Amino acid sequence: MVESKWPLLSVEEAKRIVRDQVRPLEVVEVPFDRAQGLVLAEDVRAAEPMPPFPASAKDGFAVVADDTTEWRRIVGEQFAGYQADLRVEPGTAVRVTTGAPIPPGADAVIMVEFSEVRDGFVRFRRRVEPGADIRPPGQDIAQGQRVVAAGTVLGPAEIGLLATVGATAVRVYRRPRVGVMSTGNELVQPDEQPGPGQIRDANRFSLMAAVRNAGAEAFDMGLAPDTLEALEAFVREGLEKYDVIVTSGGVSMGELDLVKPLLERLGTVHFGRVSVKPGKPVTFATALGKHVFAMPGFPVSSLVAFEVFARPALLLMAGWPAERVERPRVPAVLDHDVHHTAARTEYQRAVVRFNRDDGRFHATTTGFQGSGRLLSMVGANALLELPEGRDHFRAGDVVEALLVGAVRT
Amino acid sequence: MVESKWPLLSVEEAKRIVRDQVRPLEVVEVPFDRAQGLVLAEDVRAAEPMPPFPASAKDGFAVVADDTTEWRRIVGEQFAGYQADLRVEPGTAVRVTTGAPIPPGADAVIMVEFSEVRDGFVRFRRRVEPGADIRPPGQDIAQGQRVVAAGTVLGPAEIGLLATVGATAVRVYRRPRVGVMSTGNELVQPDEQPGPGQIRDANRFSLMAAVRNAGAEAFDMGLAPDTLEALEAFVREGLEKYDVIVTSGGVSMGELDLVKPLLERLGTVHFGRVSVKPGKPVTFATALGKHVFAMPGFPVSSLVAFEVFARPALLLMAGWPAERVERPRVPAVLDHDVHHTAARTEYQRAVVRFNRDDGRFHATTTGFQGSGRLLSMVGANALLELPEGRDHFRAGDVVEALLVGAVRT
Repeated sequence: MVESKWPLLSVEEAKRIVRDQVRPLEVVEVPFDRAQGLVLAEDVRAAEPMPPFPASAKDGFAVVADDTTEWRRIVGEQFAGYQADLRVEPGTAVRVTTGAPIPPGADAVIMVEFSEVRDGFVRFRRRVEPGADIRPPGQDIAQGQRVVAAGTVLGPAEIGLLATVGATAVRVYRRPRVGVMSTGNELVQPDEQPGPGQIRDANRFSLMAAVRNAGAEAFDMGLAPDTLEALEAFVREGLEKYDVIVTSGGVSMGELDLVKPLLERLGTVHFGRVSVKPGKPVTFATALGKHVFAMPGFPVSSLVAFEVFARPALLLMAGWPAERVERPRVPAVLDHDVHHTAARTEYQRAVVRFNRDDGRFHATTTGFQGSGRLLSMVGANALLELPEGRDHFRAGDVVEALLVGAVRT
Repeated sequence: MVESKWPLLSVEEAKRIVRDQVRPLEVVEVPFDRAQGLVLAEDVRAAEPMPPFPASAKDGFAVVADDTTEWRRIVGEQFAGYQADLRVEPGTAVRVTTGAPIPPGADAVIMVEFSEVRDGFVRFRRRVEPGADIRPPGQDIAQGQRVVAAGTVLGPAEIGLLATVGATAVRVYRRPRVGVMSTGNELVQPDEQPGPGQIRDANRFSLMAAVRNAGAEAFDMGLAPDTLEALEAFVREGLEKYDVIVTSGGVSMGELDLVKPLLERLGTVHFGRVSVKPGKPVTFATALGKHVFAMPGFPVSSLVAFEVFARPALLLMAGWPAERVERPRVPAVLDHDVHHTAARTEYQRAVVRFNRDDGRFHATTTGFQGSGRLLSMVGANALLELPEGRDHFRAGDVVEALLVGAVRT
């Protein structure tokens, strides 16, 4: 009998090997406004408090709160952006705009909505407590406070905070550069008409999109050459240029499957088979100091194997904290029977909705789950993880759902 | 009394006005591999079935299923990528690789794992049914089938499908171009040291990041000039260049708030106040055929108002189906008391987790909810929508949570 030389690992074993092998890439300094989606490598603190001065929270009048004068004299205007030479005393008020420094002597702001102005005097329809509508220095950020912690993925709010404290150059983990290639003599380019026995390459383009969705840079390496010598030169060049190579096809047991032997010669194949469906021949190797994820050739297999094994690796390389790299998992009630064989962990594509009526997540799979049927991924927002060791599931059974897109409601 | 001239709209009224005013941008043709994240404007169908020929699903041997010969003669090899001139008859087998066309005469494939080869003959450890491991033409995609529907946001699987069917140029809605500016005399650039009464501009950068997160292109218009004439020229230029302008500051009632009067002069202000906290002065206008979202100056107010009013508009302009532009809503149990005043709909920033033990979502707010405290948005994956008409909420109360990030578990 022909036996595979590669031991069949469980999904958890394979994922652990990936986690153990990958490390965050080096830290680089980038302009803060080019850092969106990157992970901060060191804490950023505020050198000054925010606001840096007592500031008006509203448009209105700076006053002495317990002043009982009915008509107070308006002694000037303090707009935002400078410090006027004004002082507020009982019987007086200073017109202020939102964000303006509070003039000395004032201890409250009364909103313009509650004011009536006549001949340079103002009276108010409302009394206020001391401190009203004044933002004290440091109310939002204390001096020296950490505003963004190392390990944070930088989004809109964090980028605003970096601007606020003047952290215009930030140290972040570099974005992984990922070369994506396809192998298979049957493949032609998408703009070519396939001849007899040929099909168009799809994996390279879907995998590049998945790489970009993981926040990494994708580079098109093209179709691999079909002789061992040419393939070796091609892969070596990729390993020099990129942090990771993602390839598909050429990892199962056929005689033309050149990828695994080549990876063995160039480095270490950490695993070559995983007890997973789809994606059993998924291969992970390190060669010339770079990582290679060699995916099966079927379109669904390659995308699911990318999702399960490669995506967490790319996030770890980008500096994401380990506890953030896995997709959220929720229990979901099956809306119909699901065929499954106990031999392997299976990931079925599904739409998961949160049902307000019963307060539970419900899952419906996306039709025929064949490894070649990319249509089974269209519209799916979840992968149902059907475990080894149990056959079949019935409508009403609860399974684990990995949310790969927004929850539907 | 000074009264605002702008009626105070409810959040729902304001959102309806936005929905009514915006339209999808024009349809453009782009290369399929540049279309990630864009919305398809017309159905794409398959001209040919997939697979286009009966194909082997495995590496192995093409055989006649009910052939009882023990040792069958290997009459040749049919690899993927071409059509060999071979025929399978009882007593013979053809070596095939995954994806290879099935030679005429064969009606099943037996996996290489179950084969034993000796002197040009093969015997099998397993019998198979007719059809085994053969992918019939059209199994994955039928000829003429719609593979990606108009209105689909193109992700990795869809891009793979476009490649598969050779749809290398696709018609999609154009990505909105959004100019982002800040107003306020107190603002300096992030790399400048603020003088007395000054602060660094943060909103422009956080709003540009939020624009990009919504899939649109963000353009930095810089800080607005502070005279009405210069501001008008500046805004006019932006309206010529971009589909949308997002600005912050200058929309409340102070005397230096120039934005609303200017927008009234240039076009139509659809609303100028909304009963929402934070973000009450949020303004939406159409001028010279373009849309303007004028946000309040406080950093949290501007980001929350963007999230609630502008983000859905940008998605609609990008061709997203109306039912997809709102964030998923789930009921969440408050883990602590929440102070709220009944006068306005309030959006509090929170971390929402799904708790497996009780099967419910739980919400914890992110500390002091001041409009200036951008830190209240850090780590938040949800906005809690606290409705008008009800004061205060207690621990254990259930509120509506809008999921703006991944669910925590």
